Amino acid sequence: MGALDEGHFNAELENGVKFDCLELGFEEKPETLAIENAVTVLLQGLGEDINREGLKKTPLRVAKALLHGTRGYNQKAKDIVHSALFPEAGLDNAVGHAGGAGGIVIVRDLDLFSYCESCLLPFQVKCHVGYVPSGQRVVGLSKLSRVADVFARRLQDPQRMADEICSSLHHGIKPAGVAIILQCLHIHFPNLESLLLDSNHQGWVKALVQSGYGVFENKNADIWCDFLSLLKFRGINVDKTQMDSMEQCWCPLQSSLSAKIGPPNPGMVTAVVSILRSLGEDPLRKELVGTPSCFVKWLMNFQNTKLEMKLNGFGCGKTDTLKANGDISHNKEHIHSELNLSFWSQCEHHLLPFYGVVHIGYFRAEGFNPIGKSFLQSIVHFYGFKLQVQERLTRQIAETVASFLVGDVMVVVEANHTCMISRGIEKFGSNTATIAVLGRFSTDPVARTKFLQSIPSTTASGGL
Amino acid sequence: MGALDEGHFNAELENGVKFDCLELGFEEKPETLAIENAVTVLLQGLGEDINREGLKKTPLRVAKALLHGTRGYNQKAKDIVHSALFPEAGLDNAVGHAGGAGGIVIVRDLDLFSYCESCLLPFQVKCHVGYVPSGQRVVGLSKLSRVADVFARRLQDPQRMADEICSSLHHGIKPAGVAIILQCLHIHFPNLESLLLDSNHQGWVKALVQSGYGVFENKNADIWCDFLSLLKFRGINVDKTQMDSMEQCWCPLQSSLSAKIGPPNPGMVTAVVSILRSLGEDPLRKELVGTPSCFVKWLMNFQNTKLEMKLNGFGCGKTDTLKANGDISHNKEHIHSELNLSFWSQCEHHLLPFYGVVHIGYFRAEGFNPIGKSFLQSIVHFYGFKLQVQERLTRQIAETVASFLVGDVMVVVEANHTCMISRGIEKFGSNTATIAVLGRFSTDPVARTKFLQSIPSTTASGGL
Repeated sequence: MGALDEGHFNAELENGVKFDCLELGFEEKPETLAIENAVTVLLQGLGEDINREGLKKTPLRVAKALLHGTRGYNQKAKDIVHSALFPEAGLDNAVGHAGGAGGIVIVRDLDLFSYCESCLLPFQVKCHVGYVPSGQRVVGLSKLSRVADVFARRLQDPQRMADEICSSLHHGIKPAGVAIILQCLHIHFPNLESLLLDSNHQGWVKALVQSGYGVFENKNADIWCDFLSLLKFRGINVDKTQMDSMEQCWCPLQSSLSAKIGPPNPGMVTAVVSILRSLGEDPLRKELVGTPSCFVKWLMNFQNTKLEMKLNGFGCGKTDTLKANGDISHNKEHIHSELNLSFWSQCEHHLLPFYGVVHIGYFRAEGFNPIGKSFLQSIVHFYGFKLQVQERLTRQIAETVASFLVGDVMVVVEANHTCMISRGIEKFGSNTATIAVLGRFSTDPVARTKFLQSIPSTTASGGL
Repeated sequence: MGALDEGHFNAELENGVKFDCLELGFEEKPETLAIENAVTVLLQGLGEDINREGLKKTPLRVAKALLHGTRGYNQKAKDIVHSALFPEAGLDNAVGHAGGAGGIVIVRDLDLFSYCESCLLPFQVKCHVGYVPSGQRVVGLSKLSRVADVFARRLQDPQRMADEICSSLHHGIKPAGVAIILQCLHIHFPNLESLLLDSNHQGWVKALVQSGYGVFENKNADIWCDFLSLLKFRGINVDKTQMDSMEQCWCPLQSSLSAKIGPPNPGMVTAVVSILRSLGEDPLRKELVGTPSCFVKWLMNFQNTKLEMKLNGFGCGKTDTLKANGDISHNKEHIHSELNLSFWSQCEHHLLPFYGVVHIGYFRAEGFNPIGKSFLQSIVHFYGFKLQVQERLTRQIAETVASFLVGDVMVVVEANHTCMISRGIEKFGSNTATIAVLGRFSTDPVARTKFLQSIPSTTASGGL
């Protein structure tokens, strides 16, 4: 059985599917093997050596993550709700609404993630659920979250997800009504080409969707005002006018892929079709028809190339002032800081995005800046657009920058890893930092501290 | 097999323990049955009817939650790390530190929870991990979180948890060094008696602990400065001087329990001893000897009483000004708001705390306030200190307040439920709101909106 991961079996057990002793182990299941084969084809299409150490187990890791992340296909929301309905007295109707009759119940700020059906990338969701009990019964609060999770753990579109959660709770609890609001955040992964032209790339696309059943069916009903007011206490400002149904596909990848890339490799497209089938999806479903080629085109951004960076003629130049912005004096020399250079990369262990900012510090003589900011940004992008690990990215940036200088360079990379939320551990707020220190920075703790102090505090980036 | 919950089996499977087809189902396991029996004794000791609908499955729910929440006893951190060590080139030592050799790697803001070994209540943890790779190998980032989780999921004390995580990572990864910082937050549940005397009760006790191995062993080493600087970017300010080892037990329940309560019921104490044993713990371990009686004393705060609130002679009085603070005019009358009355309660479905604030609005004539704030606070505490569900609490407060007035009352309860973090769904940021509307509030949406608008926005309360 071995390395069975985060609750895939569990999900089945919890929903009353009998555990069959003769069933195949996770790693021998046909769908696991099919996804592993497909991922191997994708890695080869990227020009990677599938036997190198960091990639050896990537197909299995991807299979686990995907099957875990879409386990909602095997779950029945009905069973979850039915086990947790409790009788609870309400008020007399003539007196008012509360308890098991008419007093609205709201659970706010449920962190979920789902997979975009247009591009297969995970997206983050803040889910807010409200329902109005009736029939003198209430549902256990955690079940609202569990039901939402069943529909999040599928290939989804925000509006359909809201409708499915809402409909399922309405039929399961049989309340006076149910309302769902989802705040969704889809990573807007740029391609290298567009990034070099537009440094102000917006990294996220947001969608706000809602769905209502029963007393919430009418969008102008007073009960919506109560629901929205209760969200407001938590800083969630939802304007009624924002709540029109989304008509267009929200996925930024569908529109942003460069036309220059050309048609995707048919073998890779077939591999993604087989992944969709292994998850239990119908690859011919209207919304999924374009997904395989969208995913492959996007993945090709991270193609392994033998290209070296062209190092001549870039960005050197005099600075205008004796002491430029971002300079710190240190023993009569200057430490120059370039902060918050954005990066985008792809984790080679999970084939999932990681992204964030890079801070670079180096010593420079007065009045002369050997390398400009845009050149540093190019270096960062160059090493980002590959299958990577953060530790290697940090070292490669540092070594390349050092090759222009005497070698006194410090690099800090701060990153959010999609694999930290969309796999088993689901650590939504976590963030990773890595450091490379070269030359004087490795021997002079005061220089290190000075540079580190020049980095401004941030709170969690990229969250909702 | 039925209702097997959130990953207890999984944990075993993931760690290579063979799944035995002849093994008993979760609900038939001796430890499950023992905990169920013990919880039944506790409920009876509280004077509850163990057959009433809301409590029927409480023993099983508690058994699931506890066995799940302490599954770390069955996990081996070593296995987790060994499956995810990757070769990664580093810099030449003469040049600096980065990559697989000496460049510090940090994962920040991992949300965990653990159980306090002194009182059995869950506590929240923000965990920050740093390590310095050596031997040209790095560990998969998510494994740092998984290993931390293994030691969090036991009965713990903050310092021991930090030491155990640190030691385990150090021996598993064999890096140059490992550092752990834990920010822990323990609910400080007051007893009813002390609350009525001290309305400014502080609801939390914080602990900051650290542990270091290898290059982090010396607390004055420069590498600690780098680690703390990298935490600062995320707004985590740890002062070196704060980092002395904790000498005293941090658990606020141990010290705050009223001496007046008298010795706990021996049958209930024996029941808790049997729970400890079922979790795989030794009830004679020094730190656990006082735990059963501490837990029972605390639980008795929620004893079922037949007491009615004494309703005469409380809190009525004239207000000094024509229009007091918190008044909103509405059709020539006033809606009076009493906001942020604190409450503490115990979820009857999981025997776990829930807590938060109550907002009460009512109509009043000019110049006369029929009920004072402290009386409202007493009503809230009275209905809080019971085995409860939030919907019922809301209704009971509303009905009691309405009995003093003509009946035009609105109550909003905002709560954090420990069961939302310490059971399977682990929704750290979520928050629940319930409403009761009586009399005019149920028919007049404008009055409802006016009252709701008087409630100020907050962000998540009670978090780290």
